[in-house]
Amino acid sequence: MIILGIDPGSRITGYGLIARKQGKLCYVASGCIRVGTNELPERLNNIFIGIGDIIRQFKPQQFAIEQVFMAKNPDSALKLGQARGAAIVAASQAALPVAEYSARQIKQAVVGKGGADKTQVQHMVKHLLQLPGTPQADAADALAVALCHAHTEQSLIKMAGQASKTVRGRLR
Amino acid sequence: MIILGIDPGSRITGYGLIARKQGKLCYVASGCIRVGTNELPERLNNIFIGIGDIIRQFKPQQFAIEQVFMAKNPDSALKLGQARGAAIVAASQAALPVAEYSARQIKQAVVGKGGADKTQVQHMVKHLLQLPGTPQADAADALAVALCHAHTEQSLIKMAGQASKTVRGRLR
Repeated sequence: MIILGIDPGSRITGYGLIARKQGKLCYVASGCIRVGTNELPERLNNIFIGIGDIIRQFKPQQFAIEQVFMAKNPDSALKLGQARGAAIVAASQAALPVAEYSARQIKQAVVGKGGADKTQVQHMVKHLLQLPGTPQADAADALAVALCHAHTEQSLIKMAGQASKTVRGRLR
Repeated sequence: MIILGIDPGSRITGYGLIARKQGKLCYVASGCIRVGTNELPERLNNIFIGIGDIIRQFKPQQFAIEQVFMAKNPDSALKLGQARGAAIVAASQAALPVAEYSARQIKQAVVGKGGADKTQVQHMVKHLLQLPGTPQADAADALAVALCHAHTEQSLIKMAGQASKTVRGRLR
């Protein structure tokens, strides 16, 4: 199973792909979509097309993106919203289920602390995926949200397993 | 020439189509895309698909949308941004040129006053397009941005005509 994590931004949109192979999480690819400095429609189209290309190339089955609870200011919230809109539509058009995680959930899953800083996240992404070098910040954030999704899904599977055991226990 | 105006919103996205026939502006169609109350990806996809359907049905050559200069608060700015992102990507995917106008420019073009209120805009949209009834608020806003684009384009054509006359005058 391949998970695509996206860190959307109006200038740079990071992406990160990880796979689960025999219960282990492995690095597949990561990088940045340079959104460009042209007019807004072209910038948003670059995000939409860029993510569409990544989906066609790597064929992920899951899509994860950071949820925004409290944006800093209206102007940056609008820009981030536009980039998110283009990214999420690209996933929906490819019929990918979209999962959203708060920054706190992502840090908790990757570092173990909801209040961890960016450097700690980058360090742990490098460590968890056994990367030879530290990935670029936006790519690392995208890999972190993909890792968060993998962990959460794994926990849900475990929980579902325990629940079904409990049910079975009760039925006996 | 057909112009598609869009008033994006996270709950309701208004659309309005007008055509220029023999120098006169005529009403073509207007209405609302009910974005729904489901999860965010489905809501944004409804905007993207809804606008795509309208473009395929009416084949507009121009696309106009309200520019947002100062959103009220970060939360509403993020939601509006997401809806705008989905709408603009729908236009870009159909290779439509996207024009943006501020609320002030739209009110100035339709009512003649940059500080006009919503009721005045609706009244003038009804009057200018000789509609039998007042359109729904979001549809009226979408028709207003389409009218603003038509006026601005017409002014630019006039200006270009004058400029070319001036150039010709100078060349003689």
